[in-house]
Amino acid sequence: MSTCSVADNSGDTAAAIDCLIAQQAKDHASLDTFYHIFAAALVFFMQAGFAMLCAGSVRAKNAKNIMLKNLLDACGAALGFYALGWGFAYGGQDADKTTFIGDYDFFLHANVDGHHAFFFQFAFAATAATIVAGTIAERCSMVAYLCYSTILTAFTYPIVAHAIWSKSGFLSAFNNDPLFGSGVVDFAGSGVVHLTGGVSALLAALVLGPRMGRFYDDKGEVLNPPKEMPGHSTALQMLGTFILWTGWYGFNPGSTLGISYDGAAEVASLSAVTTTIAAASGCVTAMATRYFASDPLARQYDLTAAMNGALGGLVGITAGCSVVQPWAAVPIGAIAGLVYLGASNLLIKLRIDDTVDAVPVHMANGIWGLIAVGLFCDPELKNAAYGSKHGGLFYGEGTLLGAECVCILFIVGWVTVVMGPFFMMLRKLGWFRVSIEDELVGLDVSKHGGSAYELAENKDSQKQAYSDFIKNADDNAL
Amino acid sequence: MSTCSVADNSGDTAAAIDCLIAQQAKDHASLDTFYHIFAAALVFFMQAGFAMLCAGSVRAKNAKNIMLKNLLDACGAALGFYALGWGFAYGGQDADKTTFIGDYDFFLHANVDGHHAFFFQFAFAATAATIVAGTIAERCSMVAYLCYSTILTAFTYPIVAHAIWSKSGFLSAFNNDPLFGSGVVDFAGSGVVHLTGGVSALLAALVLGPRMGRFYDDKGEVLNPPKEMPGHSTALQMLGTFILWTGWYGFNPGSTLGISYDGAAEVASLSAVTTTIAAASGCVTAMATRYFASDPLARQYDLTAAMNGALGGLVGITAGCSVVQPWAAVPIGAIAGLVYLGASNLLIKLRIDDTVDAVPVHMANGIWGLIAVGLFCDPELKNAAYGSKHGGLFYGEGTLLGAECVCILFIVGWVTVVMGPFFMMLRKLGWFRVSIEDELVGLDVSKHGGSAYELAENKDSQKQAYSDFIKNADDNAL
Amino acid sequence: MSTCSVADNSGDTAAAIDCLIAQQAKDHASLDTFYHIFAAALVFFMQAGFAMLCAGSVRAKNAKNIMLKNLLDACGAALGFYALGWGFAYGGQDADKTTFIGDYDFFLHANVDGHHAFFFQFAFAATAATIVAGTIAERCSMVAYLCYSTILTAFTYPIVAHAIWSKSGFLSAFNNDPLFGSGVVDFAGSGVVHLTGGVSALLAALVLGPRMGRFYDDKGEVLNPPKEMPGHSTALQMLGTFILWTGWYGFNPGSTLGISYDGAAEVASLSAVTTTIAAASGCVTAMATRYFASDPLARQYDLTAAMNGALGGLVGITAGCSVVQPWAAVPIGAIAGLVYLGASNLLIKLRIDDTVDAVPVHMANGIWGLIAVGLFCDPELKNAAYGSKHGGLFYGEGTLLGAECVCILFIVGWVTVVMGPFFMMLRKLGWFRVSIEDELVGLDVSKHGGSAYELAENKDSQKQAYSDFIKNADDNAL
Repeated sequence: MSTCSVADNSGDTAAAIDCLIAQQAKDHASLDTFYHIFAAALVFFMQAGFAMLCAGSVRAKNAKNIMLKNLLDACGAALGFYALGWGFAYGGQDADKTTFIGDYDFFLHANVDGHHAFFFQFAFAATAATIVAGTIAERCSMVAYLCYSTILTAFTYPIVAHAIWSKSGFLSAFNNDPLFGSGVVDFAGSGVVHLTGGVSALLAALVLGPRMGRFYDDKGEVLNPPKEMPGHSTALQMLGTFILWTGWYGFNPGSTLGISYDGAAEVASLSAVTTTIAAASGCVTAMATRYFASDPLARQYDLTAAMNGALGGLVGITAGCSVVQPWAAVPIGAIAGLVYLGASNLLIKLRIDDTVDAVPVHMANGIWGLIAVGLFCDPELKNAAYGSKHGGLFYGEGTLLGAECVCILFIVGWVTVVMGPFFMMLRKLGWFRVSIEDELVGLDVSKHGGSAYELAENKDSQKQAYSDFIKNADDNAL
Repeated sequence: MSTCSVADNSGDTAAAIDCLIAQQAKDHASLDTFYHIFAAALVFFMQAGFAMLCAGSVRAKNAKNIMLKNLLDACGAALGFYALGWGFAYGGQDADKTTFIGDYDFFLHANVDGHHAFFFQFAFAATAATIVAGTIAERCSMVAYLCYSTILTAFTYPIVAHAIWSKSGFLSAFNNDPLFGSGVVDFAGSGVVHLTGGVSALLAALVLGPRMGRFYDDKGEVLNPPKEMPGHSTALQMLGTFILWTGWYGFNPGSTLGISYDGAAEVASLSAVTTTIAAASGCVTAMATRYFASDPLARQYDLTAAMNGALGGLVGITAGCSVVQPWAAVPIGAIAGLVYLGASNLLIKLRIDDTVDAVPVHMANGIWGLIAVGLFCDPELKNAAYGSKHGGLFYGEGTLLGAECVCILFIVGWVTVVMGPFFMMLRKLGWFRVSIEDELVGLDVSKHGGSAYELAENKDSQKQAYSDFIKNADDNAL
Repeated sequence: MSTCSVADNSGDTAAAIDCLIAQQAKDHASLDTFYHIFAAALVFFMQAGFAMLCAGSVRAKNAKNIMLKNLLDACGAALGFYALGWGFAYGGQDADKTTFIGDYDFFLHANVDGHHAFFFQFAFAATAATIVAGTIAERCSMVAYLCYSTILTAFTYPIVAHAIWSKSGFLSAFNNDPLFGSGVVDFAGSGVVHLTGGVSALLAALVLGPRMGRFYDDKGEVLNPPKEMPGHSTALQMLGTFILWTGWYGFNPGSTLGISYDGAAEVASLSAVTTTIAAASGCVTAMATRYFASDPLARQYDLTAAMNGALGGLVGITAGCSVVQPWAAVPIGAIAGLVYLGASNLLIKLRIDDTVDAVPVHMANGIWGLIAVGLFCDPELKNAAYGSKHGGLFYGEGTLLGAECVCILFIVGWVTVVMGPFFMMLRKLGWFRVSIEDELVGLDVSKHGGSAYELAENKDSQKQAYSDFIKNADDNAL
């Protein structure tokens, strides 16, 4: 236990004060490390939330498959971000210049920011990767999934994080010569994490195509209305939603990256409150709108709308949680709920199949979150969180909104340029999608040894059913 | 990063010391804010626990309905407590006078105690609201639920919190002229949270009546024994129980409202230990008593008794966790297990239908928790936690027990006066209860678009079944 | 709120400095207490993880039974460790001598290390106990379970903890005259917790025998291949896995037992990173090996291998998380994945029935974790964490490896000597195993009033089926 001892205070005042000052700095470092570990553990726990949400949202026959993908992308993120991603994102920062990519501290060999910083940022990278899993569930092959989630966490995502969050980033508010004098405000990553993951998900869904029977029948005719393919367990979805909401208290308040420096505690507190209010607002508006927009004779309280509305509100407040007033979290969240609904309906109109509605939640609200900063950012709060005053449009300033729009364009463009051709290549190689037989019978029986549930000890009969199915399919093909 | 720099120590000793003193105060604020965020995140996570516990405790046909209620009361609490509840509870405190209701800081416009304080207290308000959901599950309408949970978190609960926890409260131990010289000890809210929620639940159950077929058959004859309506998933119940227990480590130790002031750390540590021991004791006695009280030829280890016994022990220790010795947590928890069993049996005798046994757990043990403080409070520990010495009856003092009894009377009376007529009005308006058809077929199919589980992709057939049912019911009514 | 006031700085410099020094020491204590509470809450949450993992891994007919055991061993650990275990493990420590067993602070009467220390250590003891539950699930009686889990947490485990973690322990690195000059490095308990639990589980499985029909048919003939008895819910298994991984961030980083002392924050950070990397590596190697080792025409991505591989990696890094470089976590985790697979296959060859593969995960990787320290320990890191430099074999030193091997022998020997005869006695008394009828029909119906799931409201018919079964069995016995 290192503490300045009272014996130090025997005559030599200067030495005692030096000891106190030095110890105070060490204490700040300890406290900040602890804060990182706390927040990172909460963010990591979101992996459980995504796994449960996705599992509940797919049909029972694909539950094992999606959960394994969730587990593996956490593992892939750990290894890929350790080996390369961290170095690309945060290696060799210098606020006096801008770089496109970091080039230092691969494999944590130099440990420049402390291991706690890596731990926290790894948890964010894992989140970005896992967003994609749900959208293309029930038809994406495991090999393709492993390939692109590695690319995403080891390369695509780190470039975005570097641009916006590192001191050398060309969009960073922490650069000494930031874009438009302000740089981009994306406090906890509506853009860096959710938009990056969401654009990847959209591209993947476009290239991969919809699930069989979702928008087209056997003969390729358009189904009108499309066939609903509801998830198999609302309990798992709700559990996932609550875990994600809880984890967001690490995600958003934790993005102060410390609690000891002047103002950090106030910023973190504010972030917790705006996060809460936006989630609540998003849930209420999404559910109410869905309720009142439906047939008056058969009105339903739609749990999916409520849950995804809350998640949309969380994504929407993530960029601005530290720089908007609590009252502003109400419209930000409320609009996020509507953005979710609109984007979800639009995807269906466009016949883009998003199994868990991750694109509306993460991509659409990732964009909304960045725009919301440009509208609602309070200059005083921005000063507290970023050390410089720039307000949103509703405070009479347009510069920040411009910067946020540039950020949106950059992320959408960059992710499209990298991931689009990559997904096309996966499709060309025939690696992207499972076989028709496997999709029909379900991935759990075909790829994972049996159903996720064995309520009636029927494993043998399942295997038999699969063999019969394959045999019949072969016979029919003759 | 703000730290006193060594350069400050160049000759001007007084300035250096001033800097150190000022920084030390800031560091305390940072640490306490972090502690609030940590504890509040854990308490918020209890929402997931309640959702899983309630979902598992209802029949499968009502699982979506109860989970949506759990999600919506978290949202309602966020918005209602932000707009009004916080101001009523903690606005405009003054330890030199007593007021019935706060009148300041609505919509957090003044942010008097810091956003972290609101965040923590919101999570408590949400807990009080969610307690009610389980009791009246499977028959309460969504509209009625939204109405009363808003009233509860925006008005009823804040008055109780104001009375007992704010400095201006007429029962508060923090007032300069506290009741009987001691004020009420309800450290983390056996009374404020659990009794308030529990009394509301009891009133609602009385006004709403039992589920169809629970105590009476089709002709209104009493069923003897009553029909058991077991929950549909013990796994969800157990998950909920463990999440709640875990969350209680934010609830009880977190109620120090800081960790930096003298003695706070010891108080928080003690609270964690007494919480643990009481939960364990409650679980063991409830399960053992149920076991030995049952027919010797068909003895069962009853999971419901074990889980609710643990939760009862947690509620029972909540008021006194900081002021009783660890040994006292054994009888407090053990008796809480018995109180749970007794109250549960009594409700059945009285034909009051509590779907998840929330009244025995939260109301009966809320009362027991307050009485237990009056019996077991250690004057030295009270001094550490509250700054004044008053012991319980077993330490030879009766004053505190008197104050706790006044607290019980106040909470039961206040909640009854406000919520009783409110529930009666809901019934008069015909808003309180779902239709007979919806209750029979289950709320998930009738109100939420289908079952919570789609293990056999049978959504269409469910909808068909519901239409048929309604049609037949209409035909029969002709 | 205690802070040195600026008024203190009026002339009397020495007094002001004394106040600052004293307050700084208090602040360290507050911060360390908070850190303990945070970490202990996370470790306690692992109980939920074990409950879900075990529940998902058993057949549906035994789900309630295993979850109740998980709940009860948390309760038993709380009461047993409070009454005796804590005193045996940590009572009366003195770094100048070695003792076999502590003899002080029973029932926390002296509260020597602060209640937070007990809270943290209780959570560890509960973990050791709960490891056993899964291995002997589906056939162990409740009475036997309660007996041995009490013995384990109140006596067997505390002796191991005393030997390795208390200052007076004969293997302890904190003793002033440690074994071989270094003592044993088992930072967070690969040995103390996981090997102790794992050896107990193996012994119990040996004495109890396999489940009916697992390795032998009705006539006692060997089944080849053995009958698979897959768990009933992969969703619960995956949830449990993620909860455990999350909880490990309390387990490993929390084992610094404080964050304020010099170097503690760095040690905790490093532990979080090595924990992450090892889990990921274990998951990937176990799943990939299982994949490539299987029939090329029917390759499966095995979720059980992936989940247990990750858990194996976590157990394997637990001893050395603070003293190995991040790169070393890759081979440690990767080999842990293989160790898991090998041990799992070996158990099946030996016809030892481990329902949840806890012996391969916890015992085999507990041993591997201790050996890994002896291979990969970095002397500089050991100095930071333990205050003395001793490297592993790959750093050219063999002493530490020797100490780790002694530790393995001690734990295996001690646990065998105590628990082996105890389990034999339970078998002799006929208390250990449930009846054949109960095992066949499932423990939930026979001992816990019905199935864990009531998806079709069929409780009465289940009871009827059980009665019929018992009646038929009796008739056949005539």
